Amino acid sequence: MNPIIELLQSHRSIRKFTDEKMSEDLFHQLIRSGQGAATSNHIQACTVIHVKDQGNRDKIAELAGNQQYISTCSHFVVFCADLKRPLAAADRAGAEVIDGMTEQFIVATVDAALMAQNVAIAAESEGLGICYIGGIRNNPAEISDILKLPDQVYPVFGMCIGYPDQEPEVKPRLPLETILKTDAYDDSADEEQVATFDETMRLYYRARTGNNKDTTWSEQLKPLFTAKLRPHMREFLRKRGFEMK
Amino acid sequence: MNPIIELLQSHRSIRKFTDEKMSEDLFHQLIRSGQGAATSNHIQACTVIHVKDQGNRDKIAELAGNQQYISTCSHFVVFCADLKRPLAAADRAGAEVIDGMTEQFIVATVDAALMAQNVAIAAESEGLGICYIGGIRNNPAEISDILKLPDQVYPVFGMCIGYPDQEPEVKPRLPLETILKTDAYDDSADEEQVATFDETMRLYYRARTGNNKDTTWSEQLKPLFTAKLRPHMREFLRKRGFEMK
Repeated sequence: MNPIIELLQSHRSIRKFTDEKMSEDLFHQLIRSGQGAATSNHIQACTVIHVKDQGNRDKIAELAGNQQYISTCSHFVVFCADLKRPLAAADRAGAEVIDGMTEQFIVATVDAALMAQNVAIAAESEGLGICYIGGIRNNPAEISDILKLPDQVYPVFGMCIGYPDQEPEVKPRLPLETILKTDAYDDSADEEQVATFDETMRLYYRARTGNNKDTTWSEQLKPLFTAKLRPHMREFLRKRGFEMK
Repeated sequence: MNPIIELLQSHRSIRKFTDEKMSEDLFHQLIRSGQGAATSNHIQACTVIHVKDQGNRDKIAELAGNQQYISTCSHFVVFCADLKRPLAAADRAGAEVIDGMTEQFIVATVDAALMAQNVAIAAESEGLGICYIGGIRNNPAEISDILKLPDQVYPVFGMCIGYPDQEPEVKPRLPLETILKTDAYDDSADEEQVATFDETMRLYYRARTGNNKDTTWSEQLKPLFTAKLRPHMREFLRKRGFEMK
């Protein structure tokens, strides 16, 4: 394995950071690395908000489900899917633009994700640690107001970046044969493979350094498919110009 | 700049490949690198279909808008957002699952994108080249049928991977100050910055090695916001269990 592949396979989320701040030069290199990612038809549909204001960071930390490390990491950023800029540019160039299409929503969301993952890899290559903050979507309207996001722009997730003050284990992943199929989707072995993976995860959760618990992968998934998980997203997006036509 | 950051900032899509095939060992390392990416709540909502069958590759190449390199690259894969597996696992664990929520659609789409970007970086770190194939969404129903994708699974994009037989230039990106904001979204300088960037892109398009043209960023964006760009996506997703509730 080359060192880059080794890095990619050793990611773990960091939720405890030292007080060390990264330089603005390095921060800009990380964001430039993000810009290097592929972008659908060169649309570049992502804007990154660097939240420096401590009061706003504290508010966002609370709104994202009391995630303190949003307040304490070196740099906290929010990746926004941004259709406003390319729409405006196409409009000025004379296009009869339409908006609110599902396809463009997918394009902008994927663009933001590809960019963010490049930022994550760049950060980790410099010894920094990161944590994605999907909790941004717990209160997306309030957070959009704090960041003054206009219509056609929505916060997909945040990211904490900083120097790690912990060394968590790498979490196991599903077996390769479960997630990689040849020529056609075939999940006939899934139930058995997931049952085995559940036991792998039980051992991991029991043994890990912090926040031990006796649970499995399947158990942990249960709350993710109940009405409790961010049922407001559809209406929030509609109000912000993502109609999903 | 460390070599990883340098790699991240020098990506360009490869659309012409040599006949060399990558080894299955290396291919599996790439997919494992993909699995190393962060995944929302450990949901791992992505399945990768490796399309080996040449007849199916030729069909997909045509359905994706006559992109021949889908037929000729070493490995062609389709990244699918997969809610079926975690839903089934949560269901077996006794959850009263609901499906079709917009939030879970976002989670699965982002999971697929983060994973794919890790695969892209791993590939490029080994001297391979890649090209994302959003054209999969030109005919998503037909392609889903070819890949036998069940409900709750949709093809987000494909990826060609292989050894490059061309050396295209790196495409310019918007200025850092356009896409990176501090504390709040402020696009008051966008119009001017985009106008300058349009001229940068005009020079790039005029000078580049293949497919020269006289155009700008804004001009190129025009067709992306017309009714022509994949207006079927909403209905396709609805039929496949992504209702966007």
